[in-house]
Amino acid sequence: MTAYDDLMAFQRDTEALSQVAGRLGWDQETMMAEGSAPQRAEEHAAMASVLHARRIDPRVGDWLDKATATDPVSAANLRHIQRNYDRTMKVPADLAAEIAKTTSLAHRIWAQSRSDDDVASYLPVLEKVVGLRQQEANALAAGGDRYDALLNNYEPGATGAEIAAMFAALRPGLVDLRAAILDQPKPQTLTGIFDEAAQLALSTKLALAFGYDLNKGRIDKAVHPFSSGSGIDVRITTRTNPSDPFNCFYSTIHEVGHAAYEQNISADYLLTPLGGGVSMGVHESQSRIYENQIGRSRAFTGWLYGQMRDAFGDFGIADEDAFYACVNRVSDGFIRTEADEVQYNLHVLMRFDMERALIAGDLKVTDLEAAWNDRFAADFGYAVDKPSNGVLQDVHWSEGLMGYFPTYSLGNVYAGCLNVAMRNDVPDLDSDLERGDTSQATTWLRENVQTHGGLYEPREVITKAARVEPSEAPLMSYLTTKFSDIYQL
Amino acid sequence: MTAYDDLMAFQRDTEALSQVAGRLGWDQETMMAEGSAPQRAEEHAAMASVLHARRIDPRVGDWLDKATATDPVSAANLRHIQRNYDRTMKVPADLAAEIAKTTSLAHRIWAQSRSDDDVASYLPVLEKVVGLRQQEANALAAGGDRYDALLNNYEPGATGAEIAAMFAALRPGLVDLRAAILDQPKPQTLTGIFDEAAQLALSTKLALAFGYDLNKGRIDKAVHPFSSGSGIDVRITTRTNPSDPFNCFYSTIHEVGHAAYEQNISADYLLTPLGGGVSMGVHESQSRIYENQIGRSRAFTGWLYGQMRDAFGDFGIADEDAFYACVNRVSDGFIRTEADEVQYNLHVLMRFDMERALIAGDLKVTDLEAAWNDRFAADFGYAVDKPSNGVLQDVHWSEGLMGYFPTYSLGNVYAGCLNVAMRNDVPDLDSDLERGDTSQATTWLRENVQTHGGLYEPREVITKAARVEPSEAPLMSYLTTKFSDIYQL
Repeated sequence: MTAYDDLMAFQRDTEALSQVAGRLGWDQETMMAEGSAPQRAEEHAAMASVLHARRIDPRVGDWLDKATATDPVSAANLRHIQRNYDRTMKVPADLAAEIAKTTSLAHRIWAQSRSDDDVASYLPVLEKVVGLRQQEANALAAGGDRYDALLNNYEPGATGAEIAAMFAALRPGLVDLRAAILDQPKPQTLTGIFDEAAQLALSTKLALAFGYDLNKGRIDKAVHPFSSGSGIDVRITTRTNPSDPFNCFYSTIHEVGHAAYEQNISADYLLTPLGGGVSMGVHESQSRIYENQIGRSRAFTGWLYGQMRDAFGDFGIADEDAFYACVNRVSDGFIRTEADEVQYNLHVLMRFDMERALIAGDLKVTDLEAAWNDRFAADFGYAVDKPSNGVLQDVHWSEGLMGYFPTYSLGNVYAGCLNVAMRNDVPDLDSDLERGDTSQATTWLRENVQTHGGLYEPREVITKAARVEPSEAPLMSYLTTKFSDIYQL
Repeated sequence: MTAYDDLMAFQRDTEALSQVAGRLGWDQETMMAEGSAPQRAEEHAAMASVLHARRIDPRVGDWLDKATATDPVSAANLRHIQRNYDRTMKVPADLAAEIAKTTSLAHRIWAQSRSDDDVASYLPVLEKVVGLRQQEANALAAGGDRYDALLNNYEPGATGAEIAAMFAALRPGLVDLRAAILDQPKPQTLTGIFDEAAQLALSTKLALAFGYDLNKGRIDKAVHPFSSGSGIDVRITTRTNPSDPFNCFYSTIHEVGHAAYEQNISADYLLTPLGGGVSMGVHESQSRIYENQIGRSRAFTGWLYGQMRDAFGDFGIADEDAFYACVNRVSDGFIRTEADEVQYNLHVLMRFDMERALIAGDLKVTDLEAAWNDRFAADFGYAVDKPSNGVLQDVHWSEGLMGYFPTYSLGNVYAGCLNVAMRNDVPDLDSDLERGDTSQATTWLRENVQTHGGLYEPREVITKAARVEPSEAPLMSYLTTKFSDIYQL
């Protein structure tokens, strides 16, 4: 056994334990009875403690010192383990514990504040969270950029400056496109009630159509849809709303995008550092291209229209064109998670700018609500009516997830780049999608992105697949073309 | 922090991790997709390795040396931890690993041999399992009785000699009762098909009627019903058979007995060594008294008859008396798990005698099938027709679970003792059961047995509750009275 072999054997158990810990989270959201929560909290804490002890195990440092890479796979494994080890060791244990304690408290206070529409009761604990994350960022950055240090928790190698440049280039086009769309007559909306069992049956059909493998996962209902797990046990959840079946269908397709990424990583990487999605941004590129560029395309929605007619009879939409417009309807609204393809990124862009300023110390927590409301009015053209529709709407900051928001739009940017290359390589894709056959698209994504897992760095895997350096231009072009067509701009 | 506090804090995390490991097993039997099995095996192994490392952690030995009990609860905690630590430390690590490897292999070979009805292909690996368990027993017994050392894995404090005396006293009465019953005309059996959804709805109603708390657990389907977990997350499974709803209903009641024991242990003992059922025998006493002495009583079956009429309409049984006889029907059969209250114990008694002789070295594995067939013919009056109906029917020995079988009948013996005391303390119980109200019975069992968890030793908790030293006589008397009435002996 070489040092590398020892390290990988140790790491394999850590990865397996990490899957177990993740499964507890899945269970809590789908299966566990509410009364079991106090015991589950102790189970979570015990697993977290076991995992933390393994992550700071001094043998890992020793093995890393002695291990040598012999090929690109072992080099990538060592790169991941070294990076995670360095990051873990840089953060003092008492600071990590304080962050865990404070974010847990902040999450509870946030939920109450949002429910009460009371920003003031939330700000003191948010200020504490920001302060602790700044301390963590100082420890991680070692003189470098604080925000980048946090961003790299979710998007290794990315920088705030690079993302800011992309987002700044995207913003005017999105603001203009949104304004032009909202000047036009609105497409139809769905009316009526859609049977839940029929929604779930079609949801499963959609999951299978997008290549989700039910022999290595399962689909359940949850309040907030998510994908959970890596390797050969990757589970998704969806939800239903009697008057909005699109919520169910597009939640499912989105989560299948995440899950397919995990299911399609090379089996050689099972339970190794390469065996999971490489970053949140690349993950989101998969969920978004499944959901939007494929799932909300004219061709695929044509097939979906027929499926919905079969499942629900005449549901008040006259033809495929009206259905396509209905699926892609752009409406005023305050809430990021309910936003359409055009407005979604505007929500993310403002959060990115604000959290970056918070961490840099350029924006005070006490000024956050005013900054939010000003920016919202500037980009969306009307005023936030209440904090729960504004600065209190998202869970992320209460949980200390600064650096996470930009990965949503980075995923959209990446999806835009991938879509150009995929359409170029599969010119007849639409004729498949019209029949509900996504296999050429999902195969392309599997072979060009998903199979690699953590072998390449995030930006690298997108660059290889898209065959250009990623930029925001393809996304803007895609959105402009698509919505100009739908709204006859 | 005293040494006792340190030990208990460490132990609490171990208990929490043990619950997590158990939940993986539940998930595998109820939720996991088949294709996920290879990854799950690694997850199980990683959890087992973490738990083993904690069980042999030298700090546990140090804390045990220094810790002192200050009250009955701390004394019981230390007793449990010391006993488990001593047992774990006595078995050499390489022997434990060899047993794990060999029983895993033996289980697979057994399944194939049973499917092929081929004893010869199973015997070599069974011989190896017996040899390894003998070695383990030698290490544990340190000169004492080998079988007792294994028995105490499942029933601390019990001895093979004491159980042999009880079982020997039980056997002639059971053989005679069985023969007398089978000379009489047989009661009706169920005919027809019983809707699965209606079976499951009534199954849930039965679980709730027996006090199962769905806010601290859940009910799912599984191939083999089981109860899983301790504390405030205790889940049960059941199964359905279209032509045999009793299979579903009495599996549910049986598992609710196990689960209620776990759910009803004093909340003070959560995630401590006292927070789980104290032994397999006491556990089985709860499942059996729920299932048989309560669930198959004339009074309760009267209520169940009405429930089944409501659920399924006229299902061909004329009245409550005929239904009572139908529920308690005694028929010829080879299989332990399908046996009625009278014959079940005869199955267990023969297995106990045989495994005790195997471990003592008085019975060779090569003579096992002949011994089985002779004993079966003597007790049941007809010959085994094929090995899958004989020596190959049970999974236990292939998994190395020697010492486990007697706890089934010990549970019945204990249930017999508890039933006398319960009926004495709750003289009007039948008038409640006739209305489907088990609360006086389940309250009595909770207060006298279940709440104590591991506070007392197994035999002690039964003796306190029954107010007599346990013996087989109450069970034999209960069976004779009940079945003499049904069969007019």
